[in-house]
Amino acid sequence: MPRLTFWYEFASTYSYLAAVRIEDAAVAAGVEVAWRPFLLGPIFAAQGWTTSPFNLYPAKGRYMWRDMERLAAEQGLAPIVRPDPFPQNSLLAARVATIGVEEGFVAPFTRAVYAAEFARGYDIASAETIGMILASLNLDAMAILDRARTDLAVKDALKATTAEAQALGLFGAPSFTTEDGELFWGADRLDQAIAWAAARG
Amino acid sequence: MPRLTFWYEFASTYSYLAAVRIEDAAVAAGVEVAWRPFLLGPIFAAQGWTTSPFNLYPAKGRYMWRDMERLAAEQGLAPIVRPDPFPQNSLLAARVATIGVEEGFVAPFTRAVYAAEFARGYDIASAETIGMILASLNLDAMAILDRARTDLAVKDALKATTAEAQALGLFGAPSFTTEDGELFWGADRLDQAIAWAAARG
Repeated sequence: MPRLTFWYEFASTYSYLAAVRIEDAAVAAGVEVAWRPFLLGPIFAAQGWTTSPFNLYPAKGRYMWRDMERLAAEQGLAPIVRPDPFPQNSLLAARVATIGVEEGFVAPFTRAVYAAEFARGYDIASAETIGMILASLNLDAMAILDRARTDLAVKDALKATTAEAQALGLFGAPSFTTEDGELFWGADRLDQAIAWAAARG
Repeated sequence: MPRLTFWYEFASTYSYLAAVRIEDAAVAAGVEVAWRPFLLGPIFAAQGWTTSPFNLYPAKGRYMWRDMERLAAEQGLAPIVRPDPFPQNSLLAARVATIGVEEGFVAPFTRAVYAAEFARGYDIASAETIGMILASLNLDAMAILDRARTDLAVKDALKATTAEAQALGLFGAPSFTTEDGELFWGADRLDQAIAWAAARG
């Protein structure tokens, strides 16, 4: 099966729009999805940004929230709730998702984190939120949270994924890469990326 | 007929993708297009940018050119040629297009400028290029070029359009605004903007 790699950041609004529908859309096209949670912070910092461009450029930020409202409605999602603070600190969620890649729970965990963040406004930096999500997936929340906080291999794996994203030329999220070396950026490129992978992957 | 206002900058690559297809797509949806050429330079300068973000952020720039290649192929356009320098100085083209709004030649003129710039790599800052385009449209090239260079009303109209764009919260091009106050940004929002205008305009 051709494979599409899905690069996403838990603090990213548009990553949410892609995360909730990528699996169904890829399956329908006969494409396998590789989920790669990473951190945009170090990549933004390398561009000289200390926070989200949606905060640095207010007109762009105002537009993004309205665009998200319209697109969420189009996709049949719950109305967008703006988490406070924005962007959320996504380190814990990304570490748990890194464990999820290894243990096979990354897809449902990712969708649940985004729904908590952008449909309910929960604080995803909190261990309570992440623990509740893990428990709702019938996973051992305490053991996974403990590993996310203490296992150096998890920490290093997330750092390596972020470094790989940067080496591939990623500069935002969501992004999609194909086996033949194409990069697509933005939730609005998801269908194009899947079609590319299906045709040439 | 509901109306969609199309805001574009002649130096903008993605504006090209929208300009070549907006009229046909709008007509098919029963929507009228108001063409509004403006200058992004003052808006970028207000954000602290001295050139295109595609030059300021090289990873984003590399991506943009590849994305343009793929999208041009999808739209059946000629292969993208990168004008030198990029971005082009678009002042003359924007002033002539401002005359074109008044005199009714803005749409074919705009399409011809973009094709010269991004399908043939012509320098659109040059009066030769713009004159040739006007002549090919059976217009009085000399008189229009002269007016573009000397008529203060043209200069002021373009400044006013740019100020209006900024006041509406525009931060990039292409953008689309509807009569009920929605703003859409990006060639990839064209169909959504037309549908919005058609349904609610």
